[in-house]
Amino acid sequence: MRPKRIFVLGGARSGKSRFAEALLGETGKPRVYIATAQAFDGEMKHRIAQHKADRGADWRTVEAPLEVASALGEVSAQEAVLLDCATLWLSNQLLAEADLSGQSDALLAALEACAGEVVVVSNEVGQGIVPENALARRFRDAQGRLNQRLAAWADCAVLVAAGLPLVLKGSLE
Amino acid sequence: MRPKRIFVLGGARSGKSRFAEALLGETGKPRVYIATAQAFDGEMKHRIAQHKADRGADWRTVEAPLEVASALGEVSAQEAVLLDCATLWLSNQLLAEADLSGQSDALLAALEACAGEVVVVSNEVGQGIVPENALARRFRDAQGRLNQRLAAWADCAVLVAAGLPLVLKGSLE
Amino acid sequence: MRPKRIFVLGGARSGKSRFAEALLGETGKPRVYIATAQAFDGEMKHRIAQHKADRGADWRTVEAPLEVASALGEVSAQEAVLLDCATLWLSNQLLAEADLSGQSDALLAALEACAGEVVVVSNEVGQGIVPENALARRFRDAQGRLNQRLAAWADCAVLVAAGLPLVLKGSLE
Repeated sequence: MRPKRIFVLGGARSGKSRFAEALLGETGKPRVYIATAQAFDGEMKHRIAQHKADRGADWRTVEAPLEVASALGEVSAQEAVLLDCATLWLSNQLLAEADLSGQSDALLAALEACAGEVVVVSNEVGQGIVPENALARRFRDAQGRLNQRLAAWADCAVLVAAGLPLVLKGSLE
Repeated sequence: MRPKRIFVLGGARSGKSRFAEALLGETGKPRVYIATAQAFDGEMKHRIAQHKADRGADWRTVEAPLEVASALGEVSAQEAVLLDCATLWLSNQLLAEADLSGQSDALLAALEACAGEVVVVSNEVGQGIVPENALARRFRDAQGRLNQRLAAWADCAVLVAAGLPLVLKGSLE
Repeated sequence: MRPKRIFVLGGARSGKSRFAEALLGETGKPRVYIATAQAFDGEMKHRIAQHKADRGADWRTVEAPLEVASALGEVSAQEAVLLDCATLWLSNQLLAEADLSGQSDALLAALEACAGEVVVVSNEVGQGIVPENALARRFRDAQGRLNQRLAAWADCAVLVAAGLPLVLKGSLE
């Protein structure tokens, strides 16, 4: 049976979003895109527009830089949802000076309760040298802990490198 | 047959320590924890205390920020030992201005000679952008070389991501 | 059947070059080494000399910090070639202020057209924290996109960690 909860982990520009979108294309269900990006500058605006164009028009898009839990609550059992991505969301929470641990609890609760099929995309950020910046270290820790919880929540977890998947848990079939 | 020498590689906050501890829990043998952390500041003190609490009381703990080779020499054939982690140890050697290559030789010799079952935890630190700092580049190189040697030493090597293992060599069964 | 196009991806000091060299050693064909390193300083000079010594004398070496596409055009169907590595090449292009996207197109076209067996080595650079430096972010993006294209080009793609391979695509047999 097709997994109902999929976790897609990968580095920057690893092809993880495209891989996740292709997974959702296979469902045949109405698709919801929970977008977490905030366009603070031209670089981000360009990326958001590029992603949207790559994705195509047949998605319902919900902009939720912070309110991902609410957005998940409004997904119906007939829909398939892509949350892209947990890393931008966590980074937005950090910038908003939120309690990262409490927000992660709320995200996990909303994922547990979500009625539809869900694919969550997130970044692996812990395989470089320790950052000199204390805030970056704090973020790296919070992200690593969140990734562990997302992997535990999922039926199927995949690491994407160079656009190709390595199955960490369960099966994509 | 259960592997006697296991190498657990992972990023920061990847769940590698918890995974390694769970492996040792399956042995049924008296357990030794070779702790490499040094508490220079509040951040590290907090981490060490948190790790110790997570681990529980039924471990013999040896504090060995530098003298890991000696600590391994005192492990008996009846014991199972967790060295956590080779990255902190190497970083301590760097701060102590030791010869990293010579110290790595000594560590590998001690691992070869160790009578008990051994699990070694280490960090993957080479999958980010080249660090601007020359010392960080030197550390990254030394760590990468050490990880290759630890993987060659092991019967079984595992890459942990988001708490989940990918077997690189041998088998965990 | 042995794959004709192999992509070897790994972190810094992951053993990816040695792994790739061993793959070529199995071909029994005359071997060509396309070297991309430029010796700007003592650190790089030392690395290049060390790599050359490790490799041994029975390779035809072509120094091509930028002109990799031309070098690939001169490989005969009887030869087996190692391109080491796409990351240094891309970084050289960045320093030369070339159009990275156009240069990547040219590289892929040359790889498609190459008559011999080819192994391409490249770095995973996207699994750390977002670099503070905008140029590093741009490089990271270009490298990630190039890695996806190299993986798509290859019959067989492998992620190397601690000297050990994880097959991402195809088979090494």
